[in-house]
Amino acid sequence: MLTFVGLGLFDEFDITLKGLREVKGADVVYLETYTSPLVGTNVERLEKLYEKSVHVLSREEVEGALAEKILMEALHKKVVLLSGGDPMVSTTHVGLRLRAHEMGVKTKIIHAPSIMSAVCGITGLQNYKFGRSATIPFPYEVDGKKVVYETPYDVVKENIQRGLHTLLYLDVGERMMTINEGVSLLFEIAEKKGDEEFCKLLGVGIARAGSDEAFAKASELAQLMEIEFPDPPHILVITGRLHFMEKDALIVFCDAQIT
Amino acid sequence: MLTFVGLGLFDEFDITLKGLREVKGADVVYLETYTSPLVGTNVERLEKLYEKSVHVLSREEVEGALAEKILMEALHKKVVLLSGGDPMVSTTHVGLRLRAHEMGVKTKIIHAPSIMSAVCGITGLQNYKFGRSATIPFPYEVDGKKVVYETPYDVVKENIQRGLHTLLYLDVGERMMTINEGVSLLFEIAEKKGDEEFCKLLGVGIARAGSDEAFAKASELAQLMEIEFPDPPHILVITGRLHFMEKDALIVFCDAQIT
Repeated sequence: MLTFVGLGLFDEFDITLKGLREVKGADVVYLETYTSPLVGTNVERLEKLYEKSVHVLSREEVEGALAEKILMEALHKKVVLLSGGDPMVSTTHVGLRLRAHEMGVKTKIIHAPSIMSAVCGITGLQNYKFGRSATIPFPYEVDGKKVVYETPYDVVKENIQRGLHTLLYLDVGERMMTINEGVSLLFEIAEKKGDEEFCKLLGVGIARAGSDEAFAKASELAQLMEIEFPDPPHILVITGRLHFMEKDALIVFCDAQIT
Repeated sequence: MLTFVGLGLFDEFDITLKGLREVKGADVVYLETYTSPLVGTNVERLEKLYEKSVHVLSREEVEGALAEKILMEALHKKVVLLSGGDPMVSTTHVGLRLRAHEMGVKTKIIHAPSIMSAVCGITGLQNYKFGRSATIPFPYEVDGKKVVYETPYDVVKENIQRGLHTLLYLDVGERMMTINEGVSLLFEIAEKKGDEEFCKLLGVGIARAGSDEAFAKASELAQLMEIEFPDPPHILVITGRLHFMEKDALIVFCDAQIT
């Protein structure tokens, strides 16, 4: 049996009682940190809580040929794979679960808190007012030329047209992208498209969701770029049409200077 | 201090360790069940786990004038308000949190697993492929005439046009709506609009998410309406354009008969 157990938003106490029970009952516990890095905790603290050792997996061992090893093990052992947030939201996990089924390995998911729903609580923005979400990746190089991915900008514009909010995930690849970096990347695209109104959109920057230092600030994107947020993880919301209660919530919960 | 603590998806073990710690440390614990009814547990089982009494609140006591009572209490006591799923997704909680701030009551949110992200894991559908979501309410009467709310249908069509999936919440008001009822209400609108293709859309019905009896079945809506699902809670997804890995996932995880 391969059980995907979510660690939730921030530290080792964001796992559910059900998740902890699975970990305690597992023959072997793996941890995958590259789809969502540990922030408020570390392997030692997890091991102390679980009273068993936690093996950190490389990307190769989850996605690559080496994944076979875990799956073979899961044929006759209770294997738990820990990951941040709610598991299986990442395609990486979907791929692994598909391979497990091909090999006749049973799978199970123990859900955990996810930023997807947490943003609603933190900001007071209503979940049915969110359009599709997108991720802002770090720029990459093609033939020595810097390329800034345009899809996040397009998704925001598409949602705005419909009066919808956009949840923007920030790249956690080589390092964790900040809100400031994310906004400035969007501005590069806006500038390229001659979109001078873009910087006036109302954004909400959220840092360290799920922790006691959780911080949310709403303002025009131009100002948001100047704000010093607590350390990442960061996430960005760009708002569409606001319901009056959403407006009140942004003023009260996110210090928005709107009327 | 008023702390909103989420109970998560199904039973008393879907709360996080952080949530349980808040409940154990609270002076008084309230439970609100009308935005999301308890299914896999009951008040007695919660009280046994928490080793303290849990007071169930009426709608009036959360939304109405009676809410003052709780807020006054929270001025000088540690008050926990339990609710299903991830708290504060419901506007009811946003309203209460706003009133708390007006009265100078500090608030905190302890997040929990939500169906919003769980559907991705259960179905293998990718979160950034979901457009806006909607709720299918029970029909209501105006001047003795039955009215079926059209917005959910419109939202599905709008998302489909853009190749996006739609998460459809089912009414939990007087009782919990089933997938079959939800689909047939959508069909009433589709028929009214002369939309004969609607019944051919690929839907995914999910029952009892987060439980061991969790069940997901993907098929054309016309067939989905005939399927006997386990008892509610139910939720419905109508798919847009499918990535090949999403297709594989629906076949393997949700028994879809697609090629």
